[in-house]
Amino acid sequence: MFGDIMGMMGKIKETQEKVEATKIRLDTVLVDEKSADGLLSVTLTANRNIKSISLDDSLLEDKEMLEDYLILTLNKAIAKATEINDTELAAVAKEGMPNIPGMDGMFK
Amino acid sequence: MFGDIMGMMGKIKETQEKVEATKIRLDTVLVDEKSADGLLSVTLTANRNIKSISLDDSLLEDKEMLEDYLILTLNKAIAKATEINDTELAAVAKEGMPNIPGMDGMFK
Repeated sequence: MFGDIMGMMGKIKETQEKVEATKIRLDTVLVDEKSADGLLSVTLTANRNIKSISLDDSLLEDKEMLEDYLILTLNKAIAKATEINDTELAAVAKEGMPNIPGMDGMFK
Repeated sequence: MFGDIMGMMGKIKETQEKVEATKIRLDTVLVDEKSADGLLSVTLTANRNIKSISLDDSLLEDKEMLEDYLILTLNKAIAKATEINDTELAAVAKEGMPNIPGMDGMFK
């Protein structure tokens, strides 16, 4: 199982580099989300950096409703981005890890 | 270095459990952020779940400015939450990992 320690180390280093490259790539992956009625739309990167928030004028008439809209729509968008982020990073990390039983869970 | 494989497995399992417990705990850690002038304040968990957004009435007068305010303040808050999240999870993961040189970078 640990027959080739040097090979394993090389693999770990390679994986670290792939993880870093993936993090950078995720800055270019965009997630769009809209409120059900389309009055609010947001765009963020898979690294959860908000790029745009577009409000329909009608939303300015009711502050409480606007706040709720923002929370709901942004949380949906952030959850989507987090899912992409986790999936992509877990795939890279898993691919590069030595096959230790039970270790899979570390990268979820 | 790999003298005690079984012990290492046990340690990995224990770490997985600690990582899960930390993720749950981070739902109760709150991050507050305000715009420089205090007109917008947001609260989110360290797991980047937005709990509240409070807008001053004056922000409703200029939609473009409001959108910019939201992006700026929310991104600052999300970055803060991500920093807490990464630091906490990295600490738990690192503590539990076998001491493989070069492996530290995996959990940043």
